[in-house]
Amino acid sequence: MKELEKLGGSMKRTEFWIKTSKSEQSEAEEPSRNARLLTKAGYVDRQMAGVYAYLPIGFRVLEKIKAIVREEMNAVGGSELIMSSLQPRDLWESTGRWDDEVVDVWFKSQLKDESPVGLAWSHEEPILETIGRQASSYRDLPISVYQFQTKLRNELRAKSGVLRGREFIMKDMYSMHASEQDLADYYERVKQAYVKIYERLGLGNDTFITFASGGAFTKFSHEFQTLCDAGEDWLYLDRAKNIAVNEEVLDEAVKEFNLDKSKLEKVKSAEVGNIFNFGDEKAKDMQVEFIDEAGNKKPLYLGSYGIGITRVMGVLAEKFSDDQGLVWPAAVAPFSVYLIGIGEAGEHAAAELYTKFVQAGIEILWDDRDAKLARVGEKLADSELLGISYRVVVSDKTLEQGKVEFKPRTGEAELLTSGEVLARLSAD
Amino acid sequence: MKELEKLGGSMKRTEFWIKTSKSEQSEAEEPSRNARLLTKAGYVDRQMAGVYAYLPIGFRVLEKIKAIVREEMNAVGGSELIMSSLQPRDLWESTGRWDDEVVDVWFKSQLKDESPVGLAWSHEEPILETIGRQASSYRDLPISVYQFQTKLRNELRAKSGVLRGREFIMKDMYSMHASEQDLADYYERVKQAYVKIYERLGLGNDTFITFASGGAFTKFSHEFQTLCDAGEDWLYLDRAKNIAVNEEVLDEAVKEFNLDKSKLEKVKSAEVGNIFNFGDEKAKDMQVEFIDEAGNKKPLYLGSYGIGITRVMGVLAEKFSDDQGLVWPAAVAPFSVYLIGIGEAGEHAAAELYTKFVQAGIEILWDDRDAKLARVGEKLADSELLGISYRVVVSDKTLEQGKVEFKPRTGEAELLTSGEVLARLSAD
Repeated sequence: MKELEKLGGSMKRTEFWIKTSKSEQSEAEEPSRNARLLTKAGYVDRQMAGVYAYLPIGFRVLEKIKAIVREEMNAVGGSELIMSSLQPRDLWESTGRWDDEVVDVWFKSQLKDESPVGLAWSHEEPILETIGRQASSYRDLPISVYQFQTKLRNELRAKSGVLRGREFIMKDMYSMHASEQDLADYYERVKQAYVKIYERLGLGNDTFITFASGGAFTKFSHEFQTLCDAGEDWLYLDRAKNIAVNEEVLDEAVKEFNLDKSKLEKVKSAEVGNIFNFGDEKAKDMQVEFIDEAGNKKPLYLGSYGIGITRVMGVLAEKFSDDQGLVWPAAVAPFSVYLIGIGEAGEHAAAELYTKFVQAGIEILWDDRDAKLARVGEKLADSELLGISYRVVVSDKTLEQGKVEFKPRTGEAELLTSGEVLARLSAD
Repeated sequence: MKELEKLGGSMKRTEFWIKTSKSEQSEAEEPSRNARLLTKAGYVDRQMAGVYAYLPIGFRVLEKIKAIVREEMNAVGGSELIMSSLQPRDLWESTGRWDDEVVDVWFKSQLKDESPVGLAWSHEEPILETIGRQASSYRDLPISVYQFQTKLRNELRAKSGVLRGREFIMKDMYSMHASEQDLADYYERVKQAYVKIYERLGLGNDTFITFASGGAFTKFSHEFQTLCDAGEDWLYLDRAKNIAVNEEVLDEAVKEFNLDKSKLEKVKSAEVGNIFNFGDEKAKDMQVEFIDEAGNKKPLYLGSYGIGITRVMGVLAEKFSDDQGLVWPAAVAPFSVYLIGIGEAGEHAAAELYTKFVQAGIEILWDDRDAKLARVGEKLADSELLGISYRVVVSDKTLEQGKVEFKPRTGEAELLTSGEVLARLSAD
């Protein structure tokens, strides 16, 4: 309810810009399936290779994904902020991450005086410099802050649609702690929050906490990998032990967890999130220190926790579609109901239903286009293509029985009274 | 209510990161007053010259400004979307705006194959290319879309704090129409929506619709200028006729509106918004055409409407402060109430009040830091510095009378019962 009101609530199609296509782009035009599906349905538009605009209906899906992530980040005590895209060289030189040989995804530009600036691809350094340095005492710690920020990464190739773009929206959270143990405890809390997020996004069953490469501080980091043929990772699963391992650390993990390598299931997956324990390494590099209880200066402990918001949208598109188009999980569908009135009486009844459903707090997209703008068949096709959870059609024929036609996106149509429809939707 | 829940609602100070400073930066460190005020109070942090991070409490103010703007844009039928920051050269060459000699604020970078990319400083071209081209028929028009997007502009100097940064958040709306008249009508509707926005932001009395330079299509465009000593514009006012003119078009306006130049009042101001009628010029340049009612191809008409969100925050900081700190207008204050408990009984009562106020839907920041973290004097000072609308203090002394101390940010303290406080706040 809250988010939908922010987005302008329910909508009439004539007052909300959606342009769907009858034909799909060819693989030559757009190599990635997620982008072809999303483009055909009018959710995204490619601006350059690896760079997409999110059109109004696509923007709604992003906001729904963000709302779920935001709630769970707030629930673990994160405070939302927004850092900058422009980045100074000095800061990143202090940790050795300015050099293009070390980090090969920088976009760089320069100020009028020709001094260089970078465009942020991550924010560990600026967060430590800004927030970490403000925390001068152990009493200020722990701190957890997060943002939804547009990251730029200069990828060599960009053929995966919104799964891996040169520009994408990321939720990145950073936590700072006075001790290793406090970071470890918080890391575990965030891990559980992530589990909840993927469940709420409809990806719970296919998403695995996965061992991946660690850093100077820990042997492994954790990724959240979702089974997905379009993904770029290979996962090794021991379903009995409920252990998933990224190919990059397979041998170490086999040894560490005493796995039988020959019995591991090898599956394609897409990384939908990652959490990383930096220990006190970054703060040491940058000399970001606090005064501990004993009065000594110590570098603080840093954890970082990412979720690619636009990538999640791409994974959902890859996983949930059929021949008719997209099939969004209810929690992220841009609208709950697609409403169509057929014939004079049907259109009149649709107008009344719209008001009634809006008042009941249902998110509804009413295709109120007149017959010159769109024929009934086009409206029915759009409802499927867009992947809206339920379709409600009201016509002279259904009205004769005092009913409307109610159809879940992948289910069968039924004739119900509008009261029954409302009861079904409210139960959702 | 809706927005505040999204932001995590009310907050305890120990669970929400705010770090205020006792001293202000020097003018040498930070030449702009708005940035000095906002930095001292912990709202922003300078990342580079002209580039600021918006820390959690600053982020809340931005979200409140955005919520007001969003509501009014939705009310004139705008659909929210998000375009990309990365921009291809070809698109901007088609209108002659790629060249650094023509547009001197581009940040540019390059892909791995060394082809150039720009970072968006505005979005007329991509909107026309993406949305305008989708509108193939007059039946698709009009369309109005908007975004809150982080713009990058390579300013030569950056000494105005968040009033004019190299990176800033802008609301930019674009409308497309089948006729000159339809654009003119919509332009007028948006103008009235802007008037409402500045009224809601607490800037209504000091903001003037101002004649400024037009383009190929109209003699004048309209700016919204707010009286502000830190502004960069000079305004000429005829208060009797209610006409404001930007210095850049003074002579033309004097002639056009038959003004007495010698009697005009010359005042310093900051541009907080602008609306621009491009006519069909841009669509002609880009050959973006639709089929009109008679079946002929015609370029469409474009209007563009901007509001600098971070700039509005800077103007508010410049205009509303006193020796104790910031004084936010109620509509954009990050919280409505700053709550302080003094002494054991006072702290206990504060905890109860917090729950009670939260349940009543009041946005409250409870300074629950213990005495080791912050003394009472510091808490009282922070309440003023942060510019929260009301301060509520509960102590053994006030409790003896069954009351709490209630003080508007710039008013006198009164002893009231908590019920009376709630009534005052709810009336707001």
